Amino acid sequence: MTETRTEAATAQKLGDLYRYWARRQTPGDDPGMDLLRDLYDGWGQFATEAEDVSFKTVDEDGIRGIWAKPGPHRPGAILYLHGGGYIGGSANGHRKLAAHIAKAAGLPVFVLDYRLAPEHPYPAALEDSLAAYEWILAKGAPAERVAIVGDSAGGALATAVALHRRDAGLPLPGAIATMSPFYDIAATGRTFETNAGKDAIADRSGIDGLHALILGEGVTVDNPYLNALKSDPAGLPPVHIAFGGDETLLSGGEDFAELARGKGVEVELEVYEGQQHVFQVLAGADPDADDSIAKIGTFIKRHIQ
Amino acid sequence: MTETRTEAATAQKLGDLYRYWARRQTPGDDPGMDLLRDLYDGWGQFATEAEDVSFKTVDEDGIRGIWAKPGPHRPGAILYLHGGGYIGGSANGHRKLAAHIAKAAGLPVFVLDYRLAPEHPYPAALEDSLAAYEWILAKGAPAERVAIVGDSAGGALATAVALHRRDAGLPLPGAIATMSPFYDIAATGRTFETNAGKDAIADRSGIDGLHALILGEGVTVDNPYLNALKSDPAGLPPVHIAFGGDETLLSGGEDFAELARGKGVEVELEVYEGQQHVFQVLAGADPDADDSIAKIGTFIKRHIQ
Repeated sequence: MTETRTEAATAQKLGDLYRYWARRQTPGDDPGMDLLRDLYDGWGQFATEAEDVSFKTVDEDGIRGIWAKPGPHRPGAILYLHGGGYIGGSANGHRKLAAHIAKAAGLPVFVLDYRLAPEHPYPAALEDSLAAYEWILAKGAPAERVAIVGDSAGGALATAVALHRRDAGLPLPGAIATMSPFYDIAATGRTFETNAGKDAIADRSGIDGLHALILGEGVTVDNPYLNALKSDPAGLPPVHIAFGGDETLLSGGEDFAELARGKGVEVELEVYEGQQHVFQVLAGADPDADDSIAKIGTFIKRHIQ
Repeated sequence: MTETRTEAATAQKLGDLYRYWARRQTPGDDPGMDLLRDLYDGWGQFATEAEDVSFKTVDEDGIRGIWAKPGPHRPGAILYLHGGGYIGGSANGHRKLAAHIAKAAGLPVFVLDYRLAPEHPYPAALEDSLAAYEWILAKGAPAERVAIVGDSAGGALATAVALHRRDAGLPLPGAIATMSPFYDIAATGRTFETNAGKDAIADRSGIDGLHALILGEGVTVDNPYLNALKSDPAGLPPVHIAFGGDETLLSGGEDFAELARGKGVEVELEVYEGQQHVFQVLAGADPDADDSIAKIGTFIKRHIQ
C-alpha cells in the first residue's frame, strides 16, 4: 500500500480507512460490490506479517481458504471466520491477523472463504462455516480441540456455528473467540446512540441497508443464528469477546455476555477504550491489537490445553 | 476476493482484471491514486500461497518491505522489485509471487516497498532500490549471491540497479530476472501496433499519461536507467526476460535482449503465447506462470550455485 497508508497503524488511521470506504461507496456506484470487496481487502494493510508462520491455499471438497500454520504448534486447530458484513471480506484480507492468532494460540488456523451476499444470502455463510468446521474435524481433530474465532460478521458466525451444532446434538468447539462480533444485527443497542459519531464504520442506517442485501428468503433479523441476542446460549463453550470502546456494536456484545452468563456460559468481555471495529487488524502495529490477540491466545490455550 | 474472482485463474481472467482496472480509473475520479493503489493490490488475488515459506515485515533503516523465506534455502538472497508503472503496486500485492520465486530459487526474497510517483517521481524508486540492495549486502551476502528480480516497472528497476552499480564501479548482482519488464517506456516498439487490442493493460496513450506522473525534474524517457533500450548493457550479469505473447511491451524486451547480447551479455528470453502482462501473478494457478517461475528459479540457481 502507499507510504502514508502503511504508516497509518493507529486507531485514528483505522478510522480513516473506514471513512475512506464510506466515501468510496457512493450510491449508484456500479459495479459496487466488486469495488467494495477490493476496498475491504485493504483491511489487511496494517498488520505485520507474523513470523514463522507458513500458509497453504485450500480449494478442495468445496472448501476454499488459507491455512496459517505456526512453526511449532499443538494438536488441534482454529476455524477463522472473517468479517465484512456478510457481503465482503476474504481469507486473503484476514490472513495476517489469523497468522498472529495462530502464533498466540499455538494452533494452525484455517481462514475460510465462505459465500457472500447478496449473491448468496444468509444462511449461505453459516452453511459454509458449518461445512468447514466438519471438514476440519474430518482431518482428525476432536471438536474440543478445534476453536472458532471470528471478527464482525465472522464473530456472529463463530457463535452461530456453536449454537447450530448444539441444536443438532453435535460435539462443540473447545472455545469461541470473537472480535467486534456483529451480534446486534437489528442495530437496537444503546451504543448506536452513545457511540454515534465515534464509530467510523457501523451506524444504524448502514446496517439497515445491509439487511436488504444479506437476508435470505424467510430469514429475519430475529433469526437466533444471525442474531445471537435472540438465541438461547445455554450449553455454549467458553466465549471470549473483544470490542473497541468506540463501537456502535459494543452494547450488543455486552448484552450477549450478560445473556450467556445468565445461562451459565463462561464469558470474557474485553473492551479497549478509543478503539474502532476490529482494531485487531492493527496486529503487530498497535499495542491494543497485540494485547487483544495475546488475550485470545491465552484464552484458547486455557480451554484447549 | 469474491468467489468468481478467486476462480478466475486463467490468462483470460487476468485480462479481465486489467480491463476492470481500466474501467475503474475514470478521469476525474478523485482521490484517484488511492483507488488505483487499492485496485493494484488486487494483483495478488490469483496466486496461491507457496507452501513452507514464512514472512517478515521490515521497517528499519528506512527500508520497508517483506522478507519471504523458504524453509530450506541456500546462502544469498533476492531483491524483488514489484511492478505498477512506478505509481502503484506494493510488497503486499506481490508477496505471493515473490514467495513462489523464493521457493523456485531456493533463496530468501526481500520484496521492497519503494517510493511511488507522483508523490515521489523517478528516480525515487531507483534510489530506494539501490539502497535496498546495499542493505541486503550489509547483512553479509556478497553481491554475486544476491540476484535482482522484478516485474513490469520493477523489471526495469532491476536492470537499472545493475546498470547503476556498474557505472559506480560497485560489485554486481549474480543474476537479473525480469517478468514483462517496462523497458519500452517511450512506447515506440512494434508490438504497440501488433498487440494493440490484445494487451489488456498497456497501450500507448496510457503510457503517455504515465510520463506526466512519474518523470522527475530533468528526467526524460531517454534516461538510460529508466529506458534500458537507451542504455549500454555491457558488463551486466546474466539476464532472464519473460514476456506474455500478447504484450505491447514485448518488442522492448526483444530489442533489449538483442542490444545486450550484442554487448556480450548472456540473455535468456522466454515468450508465452497468449499470455498477458506479468502473467506470473497466476502462480500456482496457471501452468505457464508455474513454468516461467520454474525457469527463473533454474536460471538463478545456475548463476548463484
